[in-house]
Amino acid sequence: MGKNLKEIAMLIEGEVVGDESIEVEGVADIEEAKEGEIAFISDKKHLPRLKTTRASAVIVSREIKEAKVSLIRVENPYLAFSQMMRILVPYQKPTKGVHPSAIIPEGVDLGKEISIGAHSVIGEGVKIGDNTIIYPLVYVGKGSRIGKDCLIYPQVMIREGVEIGNRTIIHSGTVIGSDGFGYIKAKEKQHKVPQIGKVVIEDDVEIGANVTIDRATLGKTWIKRGVKIDNLVQIAHNVVIGEDSIIVAQVGISGSTEIGKGVTLAGQAGVVGHIKIGDGAIVGGGAAVLKSVPSNTIVSGSPARPHTQAKRIEASVLKLPELYKLVRELKRRVEELEKKR
Amino acid sequence: MGKNLKEIAMLIEGEVVGDESIEVEGVADIEEAKEGEIAFISDKKHLPRLKTTRASAVIVSREIKEAKVSLIRVENPYLAFSQMMRILVPYQKPTKGVHPSAIIPEGVDLGKEISIGAHSVIGEGVKIGDNTIIYPLVYVGKGSRIGKDCLIYPQVMIREGVEIGNRTIIHSGTVIGSDGFGYIKAKEKQHKVPQIGKVVIEDDVEIGANVTIDRATLGKTWIKRGVKIDNLVQIAHNVVIGEDSIIVAQVGISGSTEIGKGVTLAGQAGVVGHIKIGDGAIVGGGAAVLKSVPSNTIVSGSPARPHTQAKRIEASVLKLPELYKLVRELKRRVEELEKKR
Amino acid sequence: MGKNLKEIAMLIEGEVVGDESIEVEGVADIEEAKEGEIAFISDKKHLPRLKTTRASAVIVSREIKEAKVSLIRVENPYLAFSQMMRILVPYQKPTKGVHPSAIIPEGVDLGKEISIGAHSVIGEGVKIGDNTIIYPLVYVGKGSRIGKDCLIYPQVMIREGVEIGNRTIIHSGTVIGSDGFGYIKAKEKQHKVPQIGKVVIEDDVEIGANVTIDRATLGKTWIKRGVKIDNLVQIAHNVVIGEDSIIVAQVGISGSTEIGKGVTLAGQAGVVGHIKIGDGAIVGGGAAVLKSVPSNTIVSGSPARPHTQAKRIEASVLKLPELYKLVRELKRRVEELEKKR
Repeated sequence: MGKNLKEIAMLIEGEVVGDESIEVEGVADIEEAKEGEIAFISDKKHLPRLKTTRASAVIVSREIKEAKVSLIRVENPYLAFSQMMRILVPYQKPTKGVHPSAIIPEGVDLGKEISIGAHSVIGEGVKIGDNTIIYPLVYVGKGSRIGKDCLIYPQVMIREGVEIGNRTIIHSGTVIGSDGFGYIKAKEKQHKVPQIGKVVIEDDVEIGANVTIDRATLGKTWIKRGVKIDNLVQIAHNVVIGEDSIIVAQVGISGSTEIGKGVTLAGQAGVVGHIKIGDGAIVGGGAAVLKSVPSNTIVSGSPARPHTQAKRIEASVLKLPELYKLVRELKRRVEELEKKR
Repeated sequence: MGKNLKEIAMLIEGEVVGDESIEVEGVADIEEAKEGEIAFISDKKHLPRLKTTRASAVIVSREIKEAKVSLIRVENPYLAFSQMMRILVPYQKPTKGVHPSAIIPEGVDLGKEISIGAHSVIGEGVKIGDNTIIYPLVYVGKGSRIGKDCLIYPQVMIREGVEIGNRTIIHSGTVIGSDGFGYIKAKEKQHKVPQIGKVVIEDDVEIGANVTIDRATLGKTWIKRGVKIDNLVQIAHNVVIGEDSIIVAQVGISGSTEIGKGVTLAGQAGVVGHIKIGDGAIVGGGAAVLKSVPSNTIVSGSPARPHTQAKRIEASVLKLPELYKLVRELKRRVEELEKKR
Repeated sequence: MGKNLKEIAMLIEGEVVGDESIEVEGVADIEEAKEGEIAFISDKKHLPRLKTTRASAVIVSREIKEAKVSLIRVENPYLAFSQMMRILVPYQKPTKGVHPSAIIPEGVDLGKEISIGAHSVIGEGVKIGDNTIIYPLVYVGKGSRIGKDCLIYPQVMIREGVEIGNRTIIHSGTVIGSDGFGYIKAKEKQHKVPQIGKVVIEDDVEIGANVTIDRATLGKTWIKRGVKIDNLVQIAHNVVIGEDSIIVAQVGISGSTEIGKGVTLAGQAGVVGHIKIGDGAIVGGGAAVLKSVPSNTIVSGSPARPHTQAKRIEASVLKLPELYKLVRELKRRVEELEKKR
């Protein structure tokens, strides 16, 4: 699978400085790279490593003119390197076709070039698009639809009535379409509210491992195009997440909340139900969001407040012991004044 | 599956205002309902929607006397509507019987009218009650017992020695009976404490997706009647949760803690080990409960304190910048007084 | 499986006080123990229970000289008791061999005396060491290696390129080797960074249920010897966890962070990426660690600070209402002084 620098430069739209005929066969971190491997530097502070690396070539930004080691100069080194990774280490797709141990009822609509792994269980009326890979031990419930070019990793659980777009990736252990958490208390007893809505996941979404996305009570829980969700995230019934938003690990979003486009929810943040997080907002790690957040604002803390206010409060809290000292001192001086009057 | 308003009113103990012969076939949110669907209004602020809805009928409270659209007046509109949902959209049970790919050892005690899905694996000596549904890819360990009318969703893992009551629902990815987290440090090494207790889950419990409930070290981890647990909750060894308590998503309860009856733990709350949360207590979202909580109290914050105190402290923290200003001002005035003396 | 006290004393290096011929068949908590069972007391405050217990024998520390009930005196009663548990209640291993429904490709390298459960799916080139038990419904991806004497519980998911040492235990629902969460934003779009690194888990590690451990972008995510991880923990790509560290339930560790040896991260703590937690450090429950923590220090709070500082700040916050009162009083007195001047 080796490629020489000239070929690589063409593929990643870069320019070689040094010997174009050098061949590389693997990618590595610049500190660990060996001969035959290509590395990258994105952050200027790592430039001194150009002198010590054992890599055969390094991808750098256009600002770098030359080095002891061969270079490929590009616009965005990390992006170019990440494209390199897939060129030199191609994704190893499992064997095409349906494993004989998979359970596929009559009438399931399977696209071309699909793969369905061992012991997976597909429900009646399911539709799976071309080139989609369903790994082993996956469950897909009655009537659910999965688009083209999707990757569904082992042990994913997709219940009935779930719609998944194209090029969407779902990692292992994730549960899509479990019942929302809804009860009505009447006569001292909790009565379950049936959860008969669905889950819609659009194109180019990626969902991490052991995530839970509940189905809607009515209507739909809705993950829009390009959303990226990390591991162990909880998404309750009827939540809507706008295009290209980033939901980091262990975040929890309560029922019927709407997250806008391009929002970032950092790790372990919690968002209450029935509020809106505006487009482009950023919610800090561990923040507890109790009310709607305007677009393009940053909030942090518990309860979440505008980030500058949260920082100011944080700073005043840190100086509290000092303040106590000052107030005691003032008290002494006031007493002095009162005596001497 | 359509029903006319007269039939529906009888089933949900309501009274029709308008044309009793109107037939409805589905349920929907009042804003999205189309002709042929029935909706509901529970909150008075949504009453203006009675004028604009396209629903064929609306379930309302007895206070509402009439409207342009046909009504069914009931005691509790949301409860009545939720009963409607199951009448018009019945739960679709999987086929009865044992799928040929399921692994069922000799001597397993299977009730009547049960369903065991594809590729499920049942251990020796397991007992499963009448009408219980075990979906595909479920594991039930040696000697565990599951009562009548239970729903065990795909990819649930129930280890050996677990007892589950009647009408209990367990969602996908949930793990019941994994080892508790117990080690003894001796001679600079962690020694595993065997976890040989069990898990008992009583009647009418519902457990969300990707929950973990560890088995006891000795004795039992115990989830009592009517408890409702949301997704991604952690319940450690020897925890006891009292009747009808509500545990919201991503809560963590540490070892040997006892939660009373009718307690609510809101999302992402954490509770340390070996304490008691009294009956009817409410723990706020994200609260960190470090000591026992008396019955019928509300605590919040991190560390958790009585809610009114937490609110008061929260308010004083918000006014801190103001306080600093005031103290600086006082200092100036005291200096002035000292000079003038 | 009964044993008499003389035999037991030899096995746990203790000394019998009382009738050596008494036979015990089970272990129990001292309050619940019945005749024929052995219990223990570790904490002195429970010593009065020696008078009331119905246990046939109690394991106690060497300080206790005699009691109404037969005793076994040992160095560390809890450790001795925990050894007892496995003697009287041996671990019930599943049947040896490969279940006919498991999928094992040609060329998989299986050790001696292994067990592979029903419907498990093993990838090409996998190697599994002697005496290792793979329960049902487990997935092991291409080329992964699992050492000797491991326990892999039902529904564990191990992707390709994962290396697991000897005597390691992995509980159900845990996902090892899912893709790290990495994207590059370019031209208003998130581009996935391929995650082509691996996961290395060393000897004597235990990993709880529904944990997620992502594979590295490049290089490895690395869990070193003796680490114990509780349920629902998130470990991001390229994290390193040092020997014998303890990671309690629902902790999240962000990418490339290095945790030292013998560190404790208490429940629900969160650690940002690219920092170091020094050897022997302790991070309090729910703490939000935003910067590196020196060795052998204790931090707590959100954001995490040295524990004594966090405590002091916590105390000053609690006294705030009092401070406000005092400042208002001083203001009144200063005004008085100003008037009287």
